[in-house]
Amino acid sequence: MTKRRFVVIGGDAAGMSAASLARRRDPDLEIEAYEMGSYTSYGACGMPYYVSGEVPELDDLVVVTPGEFEQERGIKVFLRHRVERIIPQENLIEALNLETGQVRRAPYDELLIATGAEPIVPPDLDTSLPGVFTLRGLADAGSLKAWIKKHERREAVVVGTGYIGLEMAEALTLAGLKVTLIGRRPRVMPTFEEEISAAAAEELTRHEVQVRTGAEAGRAEIRSDGRLALSLTDGETLTADLILVGAGVNPRSRLAQEAGLDLGEKKAIKVDQSQKTSHPHIWAAGDCAEAYHLLRQNNAYVPLALTANRQGRVVGFNVTGGSARFPGILGSAVCKVFDLAVARTGLGLKEAQSQGLDAVKVMVTSRSRPHYYPGSAPVRTVLIVERKTNKLWGAQMAGTDGVAPRINTWAAALAAGFSLEQVYNLDLAYAPPFSPVWDPVLISAEVAMKQIKG
Amino acid sequence: MTKRRFVVIGGDAAGMSAASLARRRDPDLEIEAYEMGSYTSYGACGMPYYVSGEVPELDDLVVVTPGEFEQERGIKVFLRHRVERIIPQENLIEALNLETGQVRRAPYDELLIATGAEPIVPPDLDTSLPGVFTLRGLADAGSLKAWIKKHERREAVVVGTGYIGLEMAEALTLAGLKVTLIGRRPRVMPTFEEEISAAAAEELTRHEVQVRTGAEAGRAEIRSDGRLALSLTDGETLTADLILVGAGVNPRSRLAQEAGLDLGEKKAIKVDQSQKTSHPHIWAAGDCAEAYHLLRQNNAYVPLALTANRQGRVVGFNVTGGSARFPGILGSAVCKVFDLAVARTGLGLKEAQSQGLDAVKVMVTSRSRPHYYPGSAPVRTVLIVERKTNKLWGAQMAGTDGVAPRINTWAAALAAGFSLEQVYNLDLAYAPPFSPVWDPVLISAEVAMKQIKG
Repeated sequence: MTKRRFVVIGGDAAGMSAASLARRRDPDLEIEAYEMGSYTSYGACGMPYYVSGEVPELDDLVVVTPGEFEQERGIKVFLRHRVERIIPQENLIEALNLETGQVRRAPYDELLIATGAEPIVPPDLDTSLPGVFTLRGLADAGSLKAWIKKHERREAVVVGTGYIGLEMAEALTLAGLKVTLIGRRPRVMPTFEEEISAAAAEELTRHEVQVRTGAEAGRAEIRSDGRLALSLTDGETLTADLILVGAGVNPRSRLAQEAGLDLGEKKAIKVDQSQKTSHPHIWAAGDCAEAYHLLRQNNAYVPLALTANRQGRVVGFNVTGGSARFPGILGSAVCKVFDLAVARTGLGLKEAQSQGLDAVKVMVTSRSRPHYYPGSAPVRTVLIVERKTNKLWGAQMAGTDGVAPRINTWAAALAAGFSLEQVYNLDLAYAPPFSPVWDPVLISAEVAMKQIKG
Repeated sequence: MTKRRFVVIGGDAAGMSAASLARRRDPDLEIEAYEMGSYTSYGACGMPYYVSGEVPELDDLVVVTPGEFEQERGIKVFLRHRVERIIPQENLIEALNLETGQVRRAPYDELLIATGAEPIVPPDLDTSLPGVFTLRGLADAGSLKAWIKKHERREAVVVGTGYIGLEMAEALTLAGLKVTLIGRRPRVMPTFEEEISAAAAEELTRHEVQVRTGAEAGRAEIRSDGRLALSLTDGETLTADLILVGAGVNPRSRLAQEAGLDLGEKKAIKVDQSQKTSHPHIWAAGDCAEAYHLLRQNNAYVPLALTANRQGRVVGFNVTGGSARFPGILGSAVCKVFDLAVARTGLGLKEAQSQGLDAVKVMVTSRSRPHYYPGSAPVRTVLIVERKTNKLWGAQMAGTDGVAPRINTWAAALAAGFSLEQVYNLDLAYAPPFSPVWDPVLISAEVAMKQIKG
């Protein structure tokens, strides 16, 4: 009897989580993973901290090496192999060896598409120009860092005002560059409420990042002095030594689409909560796929690392006879911008209203610790609440102290379906080094209750 | 028509929270507060940080001064007045002015007993000896600090291995003293699971605090050289310049008992969830009273600051025509011991078992941030879980990074009645500066599920 074969397209966290769990559950399964690049299972979210110098070596970001997958887990990894075609009718993929040009045809019983996401690049911007970078994978972070070490000139433009844009603006500043941050949208962190965006913009300015919102990147070219000129669509031109494009991502779903699979929101691969695509033996996980949103109660495209890991595990479970379901996202995320943390969970006001909810937004400013304790700092909290029921639908925070972990208390409250009153009544732990007697979570729930009551 | 009168015994957070809320809700109420000491509404939990020098001035710990209560809130505060008697039959109290010796008789319509708690002092230890201190209130912290500034000799014994004992051991170490910590119980932080106690003990030792558990304090006396000799009940004698008693507290409930009110656990004043005592017009709140425990579903004595504040507010609401209920505690607490935080919420293993639960304990060690990110540190988590249902009943943590706020995610999960699986499925926010992709909360839920499944 031939062994069952599980083939994974993509060597990132989603794919390798699936492969690893499948191996633990089924020692007899034949598992192959195909990865375009030269790394597997790396912490892509750590790239800014390598560029900044906080993480000394690129290899530090690798969790499990291809060799370890092969030797310790019996997972065959084909690096520098780009899968060109999925042929569902024959349960077969074709992968091009980027080194040799040879094509490898690999049959599968179950196939996982974990191709990740593709940076969004402004249409007129030529990323092949020297000094222009995107962050597709670890190798790009390596090239960028090498470029910074080698070059004297020190002005950078970062294109994109979401998580990656802001993290890279910080990283390049810490690496010694003078940074201008540009973004199409009228404010930074546009997926956050404006009160939180404003805090992020202030923090960038405080660290001498020049912020230009409402500015779209056009063509870039090399000037006669070797520097880059970047035209903005409003007619202005910026001069820079380095351009980093970090303007969000699109799902890498072309392969799935060509194989006839259904796509969903933002062309992400459509999946059910078992992570199965529209084809019975093909699964999808991670940044190429949709994710079930618990509050919207439908699928959304919110590419984040925990979701990718979790979806990978669901697939690893399900291809080995299990019946796991992806539990769903709440839209929780956090981002460090210099000393500030901005964090969110749940729906924003517009999202809530577009769900048909009679929702309101309340902003509360409180302090992270008692007034007398060193390190006490303001915490800005924005709550999205259903007016009639006082039910919580979203929470966002910004502050330099204690914001990141507090968002998870809100996330748990959202998962529990709590009202503001239930949050206010939570018995949270208190000691002066960590929080005021009335934690910002409790205070903001209280103030919001009062404001909504009117 | 005469105005209704609300009388408060005790000027601490519980009493003054009640008085303040009652004032906001009823501008016509006549409100009087009687306080033995010279301060009102102070952050008693901040005392260790004044002693250590982290908080420069004692007055920094005062939230609202007596003058502000009188002028801004119309609450008459009688400082240095000790209430000697409650006469429920006449709706009257008698208060002794400690300065003048005069007795003031004050009638009330509603009375709040918020007398707080009394430090437990070993029976043979004379706390009136020079160099022997307890922390009854802010004034004691002032005397202690003054003593430290004035004296050269530098050895201290701290009696008590709970929150206060450990916080004071740290404070005195930071203030430049060499500290020996002694406690009756076999381990420090005896209300925590032993895995957490062990982490606290290690941290104390690492900072050169000598820890002597199972050692009971006996008599102290002044030696001929002016230093103190403290006999332990095992026969040994310690020499010290300073003895600080921080061995837990008992409810200050004598007044209530003499007035014929019912007492409950540990002689705390018995209350219902409206904070009413066994007498219809007398209420109790804070460290002198019981608190409803959500998981035990009965009243417990767990004197903590948030509970005191919350119970005070409930009384302030209810004496002004409201019908609020104290929402209940989960037993959440956190304590800083040098660089370590130890935190808990919910039941310990024995508590859970004594509730008739088939509970098990699982310990998981994980890391606070990704392996590559600076500042990543181990986090020890102990979970108390009901075997059959996987329902969470308690969580305790110890670590130098990110422990305090994470305990509140567990607290929210407990309030929601979550199982381990529901915790594992939480969509928590991730970014490398703050947590690994799989947060210690998620990892410990996962490992516990596996261990329990066996």
